[in-house]
Amino acid sequence: MSRYNLTLLTDLYELTMMQGYYENNTNETVVFDVFYRNNPSGGAYAIAAGLDQIIDYIKNLRFEAEDIEYLRSTGIFQESFLAYLADFSFSGDIYAIPEGTVVFPKEPLLKVIAPIMEAQLVETAILNIINHQSLIATKASRVVYAAGGGVMEFGLRRAQGPDAGTYGARAAVIAGCVGTSNVLAGKLFNIPIKGTHAHSWIMSFKTELEAFRNYARLYPDNCLLLVDTYDTLKSGVPHAIQVFTEMKEAGLPKPSVYGIRLDSGDLAYLSKKARKMLDAAGFTDAVISASSDLDEYLIESLRSQGAQITSWGVGTNLITSKDCPAFGGVYKLAAVQGPDGKFIPKIKVSENIEKVTDPGNKTIFRIYDKETGKIRGDLIALADETYDSQQSLIIFDPIATWKRTYLEGGSYTIRELLVPIFMGGQCVYTSPCVMDIQTYCQKELNTLWDESRRLANPQTVYVDLSRPLWELKNQLLDNIHNFKDKK
Amino acid sequence: MSRYNLTLLTDLYELTMMQGYYENNTNETVVFDVFYRNNPSGGAYAIAAGLDQIIDYIKNLRFEAEDIEYLRSTGIFQESFLAYLADFSFSGDIYAIPEGTVVFPKEPLLKVIAPIMEAQLVETAILNIINHQSLIATKASRVVYAAGGGVMEFGLRRAQGPDAGTYGARAAVIAGCVGTSNVLAGKLFNIPIKGTHAHSWIMSFKTELEAFRNYARLYPDNCLLLVDTYDTLKSGVPHAIQVFTEMKEAGLPKPSVYGIRLDSGDLAYLSKKARKMLDAAGFTDAVISASSDLDEYLIESLRSQGAQITSWGVGTNLITSKDCPAFGGVYKLAAVQGPDGKFIPKIKVSENIEKVTDPGNKTIFRIYDKETGKIRGDLIALADETYDSQQSLIIFDPIATWKRTYLEGGSYTIRELLVPIFMGGQCVYTSPCVMDIQTYCQKELNTLWDESRRLANPQTVYVDLSRPLWELKNQLLDNIHNFKDKK
Repeated sequence: MSRYNLTLLTDLYELTMMQGYYENNTNETVVFDVFYRNNPSGGAYAIAAGLDQIIDYIKNLRFEAEDIEYLRSTGIFQESFLAYLADFSFSGDIYAIPEGTVVFPKEPLLKVIAPIMEAQLVETAILNIINHQSLIATKASRVVYAAGGGVMEFGLRRAQGPDAGTYGARAAVIAGCVGTSNVLAGKLFNIPIKGTHAHSWIMSFKTELEAFRNYARLYPDNCLLLVDTYDTLKSGVPHAIQVFTEMKEAGLPKPSVYGIRLDSGDLAYLSKKARKMLDAAGFTDAVISASSDLDEYLIESLRSQGAQITSWGVGTNLITSKDCPAFGGVYKLAAVQGPDGKFIPKIKVSENIEKVTDPGNKTIFRIYDKETGKIRGDLIALADETYDSQQSLIIFDPIATWKRTYLEGGSYTIRELLVPIFMGGQCVYTSPCVMDIQTYCQKELNTLWDESRRLANPQTVYVDLSRPLWELKNQLLDNIHNFKDKK
Repeated sequence: MSRYNLTLLTDLYELTMMQGYYENNTNETVVFDVFYRNNPSGGAYAIAAGLDQIIDYIKNLRFEAEDIEYLRSTGIFQESFLAYLADFSFSGDIYAIPEGTVVFPKEPLLKVIAPIMEAQLVETAILNIINHQSLIATKASRVVYAAGGGVMEFGLRRAQGPDAGTYGARAAVIAGCVGTSNVLAGKLFNIPIKGTHAHSWIMSFKTELEAFRNYARLYPDNCLLLVDTYDTLKSGVPHAIQVFTEMKEAGLPKPSVYGIRLDSGDLAYLSKKARKMLDAAGFTDAVISASSDLDEYLIESLRSQGAQITSWGVGTNLITSKDCPAFGGVYKLAAVQGPDGKFIPKIKVSENIEKVTDPGNKTIFRIYDKETGKIRGDLIALADETYDSQQSLIIFDPIATWKRTYLEGGSYTIRELLVPIFMGGQCVYTSPCVMDIQTYCQKELNTLWDESRRLANPQTVYVDLSRPLWELKNQLLDNIHNFKDKK
């Protein structure tokens, strides 16, 4: 896809630090982890998304002449460093969890192993992309869960700019939306586009009936009529029934999709009344779709009230993740390569125990119950650890260490979540198409126990540290405290 | 700026309705208004922003061969209509309120007068752009108000995608931020870029002192040191003072900016302690900047506690407008041109009195107190009305009509807010540069009474209807009710 160059989509401090490393002649290889600390919207999980755009960004990293010229104009950068930038390309390794995967707090969703100057430059854009798309995918999965399917993404006009509407639509479809109103997203990502018509269509004709007839004549095979412009039950629904009857009497083939859209009023009441009217007229398979400031909670409430809605157009609340509009992904230094090629683990301490980072070059193992296929827990481990699911395994909570889970050999399966994306600067991964990611994501969501998917008070999924990682972390913390005590 | 083509950045229904009008051979000229109903974040105003990007979008409206090919592939569109699209360009008029202007609910921020097919196509992108940038400009103005200045936009990594970070930075600077960390925004919009260094800079050196010394050596004229990596008061601030002392002793020229950045902990307590330590060492002009999940309420609270912070790095809460992440701008049909060239006003009724639209081809007059320059109220009027500020004027609340304001001739000034942007498809407007819009916006904010700027329970600004518009609206409502009664 053609796109303006995103190389300068970075915080200024990445560039000033890069220049610092350049001037100091220090460019050791380091490991940075992307992870987040809290699930959005009070849920028990998130959906990883955005990797394909990160790949695109890394592949196209290149300072154009006009970028160099701009940087020169700021007066902050030396010519020698600008010459370095003019030749810059990414030479490192990137590992990531594939898009559509269910993920949990503290797990490295993406890992950069690269000379520090390169690793630093890419921080901001990687976070921007992963934070946005994972946020919207997670929100969309909640809305789709509440609706039981049939959710259309309709939020472009309220999204935070063109990209938010377009990549947001992509993320929404990954997480299970059946389509989007955004035509550009449809073109760029080959995802289904959906829509009906607006109130202005009705208002531009002399009568509602004339507007409906015209729409039905033009779109006889996909005919959803918006019924709330004047009076839903007294005017909209009767006129829609009249038009469906006329189509039938004219001997037209049965439409693939036909029915009504409610966009205001008491959706529970109106949908039940409309259902009865449609059924009484013989249109038992007419769809009732609704749109009107919907979110997962309102949809859950409407369904529990017996609303007769099977198709949901969700806009603002989904495309902005309104109740939680930011995904708190961070990018933290985990290790620095020593002269002998070995990684020296690094830890960032904090007064807040939750903010102490996990040191070292790591990976993630996911453990499934063999019988049900559901997730038993995740194990953040050092990258060189291996596990054999025929062996018994005890995993334990990294803080409340007496909380243990015993996994009998043969009763579980295990898989590593991080896969290589770039090796030595070369992309070694091909993203699946969005609809294949959607299928994969559906399978991923099915690996969650129902108790972890529900909207209210979902059950936390265990994310433990492997014994070697836990020991390393404690040893580093001990060293820091001993050092402080000695001072 | 080079950008992917946004012509397909539209809801599918705009295109299906366009095809409907095309097939029906109906393409009357219509008037659509963009307006919003509620101020974001419980404030009393909003800041209009995004017009320059809308101009760019309209100028570049053009269906490329690959767009047509994509639309053909959906099976929804006829060849004759696709041929029409291939030749499409915008031929209408657009009026808008200039960027940086203070605006209020129900006022047309932008007005499209164009053949209905064209007016319909541009709805979604116009709303997307205006909704996003006005939202962020409004939020930023609140943060800047709370801080009393010195706010830097630092949110790129948490923004909802690349555009949200980049256009959001632009909107933030319009509303008074002194700069952004986003280098791409700096280049595209010629706005100041700002930044210091990250914790990873400190961690990549053996000691904090060594990291500070290196940074100071590289950036002696702009030297803000991040002091919270290990221990703010026991390690960070003393090391910073040591480095500033060394710089002074080495006879370096006094830096333009130097000081410390706090990024965690109790900012009120730490800033007061740090201020004392810096002052005691003779660095009374050292800046104390802070960043850590700030928003307008936290900043107001910190200042009321006497926090010694004069520079604020604000990220997530500003760039996503976290407490209110969507600006509810809508696009409503207001009039249709009749065969005689006159506009026939259109009204959209609703059970909800607030949702009844204002009919006709309209404009807005802003009335200022002549002595103070503060806003007395706005008057939404029909486009052909004129006012003479030497004449006395009575304005009245459109719902509670007994609420009247008498304006004596000569005691007020009046200006029209909507200005022509496109006439007959040609752009007739040149956007000021962003820093000039910032200056203008500052003047605009000063036209608000203090009571309307405060964060808690701000005073609503009057937006009234002119008498001719009010009479037209009531007449149309009467017609509808008479029609309903007769049925």
